[in-house]
Amino acid sequence: MNNEGLLLVVSAPSGCGKDTVISKVLEQLGDKAMLSVSMTTRAMRPGEKEGVNYFYVSVDEFRKHIENGDMLEYATYGSNFYGTPIKPVKDKLKEGKIVILIIEVEGGGNVKKIFPEAKKIFIVPPSMQVLESRLRNRATDSDEAIKERMQIALTELRRAEEYDYIIENSVLEDAVSDVMSIIRAGQLEISKMKNKISEVITNA
Amino acid sequence: MNNEGLLLVVSAPSGCGKDTVISKVLEQLGDKAMLSVSMTTRAMRPGEKEGVNYFYVSVDEFRKHIENGDMLEYATYGSNFYGTPIKPVKDKLKEGKIVILIIEVEGGGNVKKIFPEAKKIFIVPPSMQVLESRLRNRATDSDEAIKERMQIALTELRRAEEYDYIIENSVLEDAVSDVMSIIRAGQLEISKMKNKISEVITNA
Repeated sequence: MNNEGLLLVVSAPSGCGKDTVISKVLEQLGDKAMLSVSMTTRAMRPGEKEGVNYFYVSVDEFRKHIENGDMLEYATYGSNFYGTPIKPVKDKLKEGKIVILIIEVEGGGNVKKIFPEAKKIFIVPPSMQVLESRLRNRATDSDEAIKERMQIALTELRRAEEYDYIIENSVLEDAVSDVMSIIRAGQLEISKMKNKISEVITNA
Repeated sequence: MNNEGLLLVVSAPSGCGKDTVISKVLEQLGDKAMLSVSMTTRAMRPGEKEGVNYFYVSVDEFRKHIENGDMLEYATYGSNFYGTPIKPVKDKLKEGKIVILIIEVEGGGNVKKIFPEAKKIFIVPPSMQVLESRLRNRATDSDEAIKERMQIALTELRRAEEYDYIIENSVLEDAVSDVMSIIRAGQLEISKMKNKISEVITNA
């Protein structure tokens, strides 16, 4: 293989199961892939770990990173900042890794300016009704919070056309297999396979 | 699913196993997919069937189809014409079918003018040495014919960049799975999934 890595950007309304889908994908890909760790100013939640779920920084620190131009994207969600530092992504792509970036819809718009070949995937629920019942089953949010999440979900769905691919997360295994297909197709694109062609021709 | 079909264009130098790969793909897809049947002026070979391998016509008939503008593409290969009538492809795509078109490299250039969303796949051998030994094992061609085929293969490989995807046919099962990934990714593209998004939003 002579691929120079692949950047996958994944967004989804809250409750669409994007984290579960991507964790299964990472399981299948082993050390060929890695999750890009985002930076956030939001408080660490129980069970989360520094450098695994997020890098947790202060608002001041976050602002400094933005000023230095070293953020791939950043967005505010509620009153918190979320973002991705550029350098670790570039480094991993050069190593030939598949880098998966889970980001808020709001932050997705800028990625292609820096990584034009990134594949942007938007995960959608089978229906808003299913999404609502999933949010209720999580039982982590108040009625009001769920209402707000549903409103945000609708706003996000209206931006789905900014993405390259849409995956419906109805059956988990199918959604995982869909992500795998998009990754494989990405690796087979002519831009990634030019070396193979040259190799066959020059060794003739 | 609300896909409006998918057109797959597959080319490969002679001896790269494209027919075997595609027949396995068709097996897996069942009635979701079909092979587009080409028209040719070359003689029917033993075991071939009219309307299955090709539609066999005279040079005069073929020329008439070209003049009428009802060919998607056509090419001469040796002294024979090969081509694809447009209408049956359009009809099958409208039915939502995956239509697979196996064509000569020479004929591939025009397809995107009529079907801009077609996915063009070029199958390459692991190396020219492997290609030569495959051609020799077929034992259907003279030494001279093999030499000529190898020359044509090199010329065709130099046009690989006209394709969207490159698949190396080293292990048959992998090549088949690669084609399946490209098809699935094609079905998940935003252009094919807009209806799904609208459906989720309007039923909210």
